Amino acid sequence: MSRKRLRDYGFTVGKLPTGRFNSITDVPGVSVGHVTLYEDRPDACVRTGVTAILPHPGDWFREKTVAAAHVINGFGKTAGLVQVDELGVIESPIMLTNTFGVPAVTEGTLRYMLAQDDGIGDRDGSLNVVTGECNDSLLNDMRGLHVRPEHAMEAIRQGWAATDRRVLEGAVGAGTGMVCFGYKGGIGTSSRQVEVDGAIYHFGVLVLSNFGLGEDLTILGKPVGESLRAKPGEARDNDGSIIIVIGTDLPMDARQLKRIAKRAGFGLARTGSIAHHGSGDIAIAFSNGNRIPHTPASGVLELRVVREDGRLMSDCFRAVTEATEEAIYNSLFMAETTTGRQGRTIDALPIEEVLAVLGR
Amino acid sequence: MSRKRLRDYGFTVGKLPTGRFNSITDVPGVSVGHVTLYEDRPDACVRTGVTAILPHPGDWFREKTVAAAHVINGFGKTAGLVQVDELGVIESPIMLTNTFGVPAVTEGTLRYMLAQDDGIGDRDGSLNVVTGECNDSLLNDMRGLHVRPEHAMEAIRQGWAATDRRVLEGAVGAGTGMVCFGYKGGIGTSSRQVEVDGAIYHFGVLVLSNFGLGEDLTILGKPVGESLRAKPGEARDNDGSIIIVIGTDLPMDARQLKRIAKRAGFGLARTGSIAHHGSGDIAIAFSNGNRIPHTPASGVLELRVVREDGRLMSDCFRAVTEATEEAIYNSLFMAETTTGRQGRTIDALPIEEVLAVLGR
Amino acid sequence: MSRKRLRDYGFTVGKLPTGRFNSITDVPGVSVGHVTLYEDRPDACVRTGVTAILPHPGDWFREKTVAAAHVINGFGKTAGLVQVDELGVIESPIMLTNTFGVPAVTEGTLRYMLAQDDGIGDRDGSLNVVTGECNDSLLNDMRGLHVRPEHAMEAIRQGWAATDRRVLEGAVGAGTGMVCFGYKGGIGTSSRQVEVDGAIYHFGVLVLSNFGLGEDLTILGKPVGESLRAKPGEARDNDGSIIIVIGTDLPMDARQLKRIAKRAGFGLARTGSIAHHGSGDIAIAFSNGNRIPHTPASGVLELRVVREDGRLMSDCFRAVTEATEEAIYNSLFMAETTTGRQGRTIDALPIEEVLAVLGR
Amino acid sequence: MSRKRLRDYGFTVGKLPTGRFNSITDVPGVSVGHVTLYEDRPDACVRTGVTAILPHPGDWFREKTVAAAHVINGFGKTAGLVQVDELGVIESPIMLTNTFGVPAVTEGTLRYMLAQDDGIGDRDGSLNVVTGECNDSLLNDMRGLHVRPEHAMEAIRQGWAATDRRVLEGAVGAGTGMVCFGYKGGIGTSSRQVEVDGAIYHFGVLVLSNFGLGEDLTILGKPVGESLRAKPGEARDNDGSIIIVIGTDLPMDARQLKRIAKRAGFGLARTGSIAHHGSGDIAIAFSNGNRIPHTPASGVLELRVVREDGRLMSDCFRAVTEATEEAIYNSLFMAETTTGRQGRTIDALPIEEVLAVLGR
Repeated sequence: MSRKRLRDYGFTVGKLPTGRFNSITDVPGVSVGHVTLYEDRPDACVRTGVTAILPHPGDWFREKTVAAAHVINGFGKTAGLVQVDELGVIESPIMLTNTFGVPAVTEGTLRYMLAQDDGIGDRDGSLNVVTGECNDSLLNDMRGLHVRPEHAMEAIRQGWAATDRRVLEGAVGAGTGMVCFGYKGGIGTSSRQVEVDGAIYHFGVLVLSNFGLGEDLTILGKPVGESLRAKPGEARDNDGSIIIVIGTDLPMDARQLKRIAKRAGFGLARTGSIAHHGSGDIAIAFSNGNRIPHTPASGVLELRVVREDGRLMSDCFRAVTEATEEAIYNSLFMAETTTGRQGRTIDALPIEEVLAVLGR
Repeated sequence: MSRKRLRDYGFTVGKLPTGRFNSITDVPGVSVGHVTLYEDRPDACVRTGVTAILPHPGDWFREKTVAAAHVINGFGKTAGLVQVDELGVIESPIMLTNTFGVPAVTEGTLRYMLAQDDGIGDRDGSLNVVTGECNDSLLNDMRGLHVRPEHAMEAIRQGWAATDRRVLEGAVGAGTGMVCFGYKGGIGTSSRQVEVDGAIYHFGVLVLSNFGLGEDLTILGKPVGESLRAKPGEARDNDGSIIIVIGTDLPMDARQLKRIAKRAGFGLARTGSIAHHGSGDIAIAFSNGNRIPHTPASGVLELRVVREDGRLMSDCFRAVTEATEEAIYNSLFMAETTTGRQGRTIDALPIEEVLAVLGR
Repeated sequence: MSRKRLRDYGFTVGKLPTGRFNSITDVPGVSVGHVTLYEDRPDACVRTGVTAILPHPGDWFREKTVAAAHVINGFGKTAGLVQVDELGVIESPIMLTNTFGVPAVTEGTLRYMLAQDDGIGDRDGSLNVVTGECNDSLLNDMRGLHVRPEHAMEAIRQGWAATDRRVLEGAVGAGTGMVCFGYKGGIGTSSRQVEVDGAIYHFGVLVLSNFGLGEDLTILGKPVGESLRAKPGEARDNDGSIIIVIGTDLPMDARQLKRIAKRAGFGLARTGSIAHHGSGDIAIAFSNGNRIPHTPASGVLELRVVREDGRLMSDCFRAVTEATEEAIYNSLFMAETTTGRQGRTIDALPIEEVLAVLGR
Repeated sequence: MSRKRLRDYGFTVGKLPTGRFNSITDVPGVSVGHVTLYEDRPDACVRTGVTAILPHPGDWFREKTVAAAHVINGFGKTAGLVQVDELGVIESPIMLTNTFGVPAVTEGTLRYMLAQDDGIGDRDGSLNVVTGECNDSLLNDMRGLHVRPEHAMEAIRQGWAATDRRVLEGAVGAGTGMVCFGYKGGIGTSSRQVEVDGAIYHFGVLVLSNFGLGEDLTILGKPVGESLRAKPGEARDNDGSIIIVIGTDLPMDARQLKRIAKRAGFGLARTGSIAHHGSGDIAIAFSNGNRIPHTPASGVLELRVVREDGRLMSDCFRAVTEATEEAIYNSLFMAETTTGRQGRTIDALPIEEVLAVLGR
């Protein structure tokens, strides 16, 4: 894989320092697994997959992660948000796939966790699975429902197995068939560091990018889409969706994480998005710095929360804004040209031309 | 089936007149289909099913129904609400099943509609399926995932085939394994009429009841649960969920329907519910008096909405409050004693004893 | 004052024990002050006032109270909720008055707190005042804007001065001109106890009642309004509003308090309300068991929250449901017959007749 | 006044055409009135004011304007949003002032409308006034409460009297004491045209800008704040607020306008905002293309709404995004250097230096 990330060309996004890998996996305990489905069958062109974000290396059901979601534009089918809103926790991996793959991935995740824990769905109550999606039907035979429950289970296993904290980006996992600003998009990630009381915490973002008109693409404030405008075909007018997953180890409560999730929209806006009518743009934020036991040991618990009176919270907002913007760029920089359904080819972002516009 | 509804014993709920069948099917164009899964397998006790509410007798995707949802308590996994909130329409049947059946039922509904319309998931965009659920694991082997996509497809077909507008209630369809106030619950329905400018419109409610502590059951203001309290076993302490589906032919917009949906909670409260922590209590309201074409013919559309300045809207609120309360009673009055998982028996509501408390 | 509360006649509401005074002031640290404006001027009949609920006996701005609000029906003008929703704290007393008195009361509260703290509005940022309201124009010349800022300041001082934890109820303070189910309403209060880890905590409710059609009044499940129906005049058809203030010393975060606030609607529903179109029904909940310093001493704070996995949270929901229902009854039982604007007389609830219906 | 707007220097923002005056007053029927309070008293430095946006030239109470609001970040005290959310209409002018001026301005607007209509607060129900605010205490003695009710009344009269559709911008009206990115901000406006079925409609935006760290200022994608960074003093670190008022004559319902209001955040993000913790960032959108009579003539009304299936709604989103971005720039380009409280001087944006960065 010869493609490189934006930062490899000497550019930075914003002001805060990144984590070591500039990845959601800079948040201690977070890992990512991908399953890529890329197959040319006689009757179907399969360009899709599943990505699993594991919020911590423990038992997600027994040690829930504090969480919140924010719907930027709700033309989408993400599963599990009703309960996240009510209880402020996530108790599963956060799964990503194509729009029509949500049921299969949700069921596969359920199967995985039922196999781990015989209390779920029995004496210990039900389980809420969070699954986000974008529509990959430009390249993928989405009507064929090629994502199956076992693919979700395998993506989770891949997350457990991941030893390298460098997350594969671009046309991989759930990002296999996605299109962003008319170019090949998909998975991208980035991170930022924030210092609190002398300790370093991380905010990591992973996006599944599948949105935007080609002419709107803006990189680091430059109207890149305008400059590249001469060439594109109809495929550049896809106005799909984006799922933005934000993780942190800074202890926060659900209300604070809702504020965090809202800032993903600020990073998104800087890339040229206007959250098109048909776009399902959803941000999901979690903190594994606070874990809520399924069965607490006492009636009153201690929850750690970040102070919220001034600059520190704004720094957290800045971290999410910057990392979201950069994760989207990385999804474009890393994705390879892909040919899919109906012979349609979606070009990779032409990096040399982009660099020319960026003025390097 | 010898059980009868509350009204058959001479009681009324509230002040407004019911429709002819006192059923959600009094709303012109609405029909209901059930698939009941009741099987004793060597390795599993299956007491579950699927219920489909068809919002109108046309093409749900091409002629969308104006809709809104209200989450009373969000400990639940209902699918499809993100898009309903954003766009104010429903474009599928409203499906009901058990908690872990949501993925299968959503996928089955998707398959049904993909088979009807080759534009979905291709040139005409994606499809949002709305699926509500309650946890039937007291009686049903919910971990076994016995609800499959074909059951959803069959429930929809049953809805099309329904010629009798009397909806089966109690332990049927999605209600097969549900428990309400410690007694057998499940499906119940009721309706009310409202007069506008000399024309009669209907509000119909269908509930999937699976909530409540036995001691809290209140019928027509009487503390029935207290009176019956001597006998119950642990099964009466289930604190599950309720899905409340409200249909009307009165033209309303999505904001108005959100107000309507909120009043379902008022009917619920009168039966003794406090919306327990673990309860997923969700109301979904639609008006088939307004249909939005998938591809409108002009840039500005005429939408008909009910006037909202005074008594008329309050009458609509009253209709929903009363019909919700009565639909819950009907779910209890009509459900038969059911023995299920682990040999557990949930008794039918003891009608003679209840009537004694009600003072007949 | 010869009128007595519902419980003085031997009735109970629900199952949980009340606090010592069955009042919001059973929550340690909470106090209440009233200013009653009752004057017959040549040009105006003044029947209105202000009520202040002080959340704790400290500095409300420097030690903020964790809080949340829930809008049951938003036909109302309550001030301050945008910031409560965002930050999850209240930093002022909670003020109640008539609809057009909100600006004056908000400004008076602001003046009071500016006089206490010269950092507010200068180096320490702005101040958010929470003021709830109902429309008392049936009895009061609301157009005359007779509530002035100094009345708010005096109500706060009365709260500080209150030595008796028995709160005056009925036609007093903001309740002076309010009408509920066609009878004289106004201020009512009640409380419940919940035990956590061997310690007793309180949930207290104070209502400003001004809602409901006479025919709908339900007391302890009995259709009292129907029984008293023969007599009422047009004044019984007021469909005003209710503000429900909930305090507790149990430590909770803002998300939990939002869940608490929603249960006020369950108590309200049991009194016969359907949250009429024209009703501004708003619940505001705070916990003084968690206080957030304006300037925290460290970057990460410890916040105490109640466990949320089962029965305990449901008990809290039950406490609020029961106390809300009883506070409304108390507002009716305690309010005296009042004659006001345009010679209109609103009768006190006829207690003997009501007791006859209740079956004593 | 020698200052000029961004566009006067040959720059454009985005792709859509502006209206004739590039102002919210390009929306037919909308007018704007300012009252500026600029006074050096022995005991107080007054740098504040009131701005009134009149949504149409009729009776705002009897012919309500369809409306919605979106809270980007709720550290703010805007009045009236509870009822806007519930009913989807605005029935007053939209008023802007300083944070502590909200009660006075709300009361003044109330007084104005009570004087026009003796049914308000009597037989025709109450009135909901919408008042937005930012904190101008860097330059203004906000603690002195210098804005009084009569200033609101005068601002409304100025709106009626406005014959020139060119709105005064910068340090005027509510913008007199506001600071944006460390430079003098305040009032700014812009508009965009959208074509529907061959007819031209307008989206107009008016902002009250008072937010942002100096170093973050971004103009047309260029890091202007970074370039100007050498000079600023502490005053540039104000992290205040912004109120964004959006008007259109395109018929929309309240749900659609809520979607519109959310896009204001996309324009805001492009100027460098991250919606700081302490910022009260609120968007209020109205359509005077739909007016709802206080007393409708029939039970079912015809409401005109724009089609919502594709490019047209996205064009509306683009219009709001672009006009918000440009209105903020205009507030900076037009505001004059202002010296205020404690001798503090806030510089006007140094236009020549900015143009150098923009590359003219």
